[in-house]
Amino acid sequence: MRDYLKELIYPKVIVEGMKYSIFNGGKRLRPVLLLMVLELLEEDTNLGLPSAVAIEMIHAYSLVHDDLPALDDDEYRRGKLTTHKKFGEAEAILVGDALLTYAFLVLSSKNNQLTSEKIVEIIKKTSIASGSCGMIGGQMVDIEYENKKADLPTLQYIHTHKTGMLLKLPVEIALIISGTVGKKQDVLLEYADLIGLAFQIKDDILDVEGEFEKLGKKIGSDQISDKSTYVSLLGLEQSKKILNEKIKKANEIIKKEFGEKGKYLIKLADFIREREK
Amino acid sequence: MRDYLKELIYPKVIVEGMKYSIFNGGKRLRPVLLLMVLELLEEDTNLGLPSAVAIEMIHAYSLVHDDLPALDDDEYRRGKLTTHKKFGEAEAILVGDALLTYAFLVLSSKNNQLTSEKIVEIIKKTSIASGSCGMIGGQMVDIEYENKKADLPTLQYIHTHKTGMLLKLPVEIALIISGTVGKKQDVLLEYADLIGLAFQIKDDILDVEGEFEKLGKKIGSDQISDKSTYVSLLGLEQSKKILNEKIKKANEIIKKEFGEKGKYLIKLADFIREREK
Repeated sequence: MRDYLKELIYPKVIVEGMKYSIFNGGKRLRPVLLLMVLELLEEDTNLGLPSAVAIEMIHAYSLVHDDLPALDDDEYRRGKLTTHKKFGEAEAILVGDALLTYAFLVLSSKNNQLTSEKIVEIIKKTSIASGSCGMIGGQMVDIEYENKKADLPTLQYIHTHKTGMLLKLPVEIALIISGTVGKKQDVLLEYADLIGLAFQIKDDILDVEGEFEKLGKKIGSDQISDKSTYVSLLGLEQSKKILNEKIKKANEIIKKEFGEKGKYLIKLADFIREREK
Repeated sequence: MRDYLKELIYPKVIVEGMKYSIFNGGKRLRPVLLLMVLELLEEDTNLGLPSAVAIEMIHAYSLVHDDLPALDDDEYRRGKLTTHKKFGEAEAILVGDALLTYAFLVLSSKNNQLTSEKIVEIIKKTSIASGSCGMIGGQMVDIEYENKKADLPTLQYIHTHKTGMLLKLPVEIALIISGTVGKKQDVLLEYADLIGLAFQIKDDILDVEGEFEKLGKKIGSDQISDKSTYVSLLGLEQSKKILNEKIKKANEIIKKEFGEKGKYLIKLADFIREREK
């Protein structure tokens, strides 16, 4: 990741803001997932590096903008000051814009050794998953339903779009890179859907049960802002039950299709259920 | 432009915000420039449409974010409420993000009939011109120097990056599409640099001499925020002199290289000098 940022020097504030927002102790779930799927499909993982970096930059930008006072107004993320608290609000808006733009530069730069056809396909998938029909759409509806009760279909729209599509993207890109189609493709896409949903349910559970020290951000903020979550709609026990079911299903289909080779994806799914941050 | 947005339906607020920000009476200078250069180079202008739309979306997003309270805090643009005044601040941040992301979708979608090699090259140029080494970099330094005297080199950095690079981009893209190199390329790139600088000097002049009715935004805002401009650094007369020189030079090199066929680019340069908004 550092390699991809080292050419950036000026203006200093924006470069420091970008680095601050990227190197902030994130779990790197999306890049790891992309590389794991490539490995599973016996494809050269180096071919996935630019895409892995680009997705992480888009994820980082989305957090920088989400934390802004006009949106979630968060002061801490992963135990550190949010970008606007550290650098100022105008700076954080521009840092987010710069990370998003830079993701597309990384994808289109000569470091990307894929064929131009595959690069264009990856850029298309990336802009769909992160745009108004994807992540931004989910974020928008999430904001609309603050202090307003959302029903389950609306909550599902928010989750599949706000987090789901960007979690599915690494799998989609790994499939494009390796040219995988058919049954393997279907199974991996279903796995991505299942862990994406599980990830969000776990997030809702952590907002109730988590600890600030581990989570590094405010606890109970969903309740304070009266946000509809799995927990508020279905209760804690039912949410945990669904979480377990999704992870179990995800692991089953991977095991069935890939056997022993799927063990890292199974570990990843288990991590999503067990994580404390 | 409308064709490119018609597939977007949901979430409603974001789609309406995107349309509001795009169809706001802008001059469409960048798309027009791209199509004019293609015409001059005897290339099919249809091939330039996705790029023209993408550049205008990036331009629109940059205005939406620039107008935000944390940045320029503008209430009006082209005589209409700015996006955050109309839709809310969180919405405007997301609308800007969505426009930027959508630009890359337009470039990579199947409507773009260019070869994948050219599309990747265009996406690369676009992300450089609009990113932290381009437009966002200029915007960042501009903010740093608010209420602080900038010297001429700093002012030139701000101008070439904040406005110059996105005005040069249409010419660069037209050159890629048509595969133009050599003398014609050099002349067109120099023309782009000259009108880019002229455009910004004229902007500074209009901020002093313009009329709200025509300009549709606050007059004298540079002076109020004590911004360094060509006018504040060199005076009104000297600024007008430089403006005239740049336009004259731009027109001369076009005439010399392209003769009568260059007349539309000459008209465009004259328009930049004469414009009242």
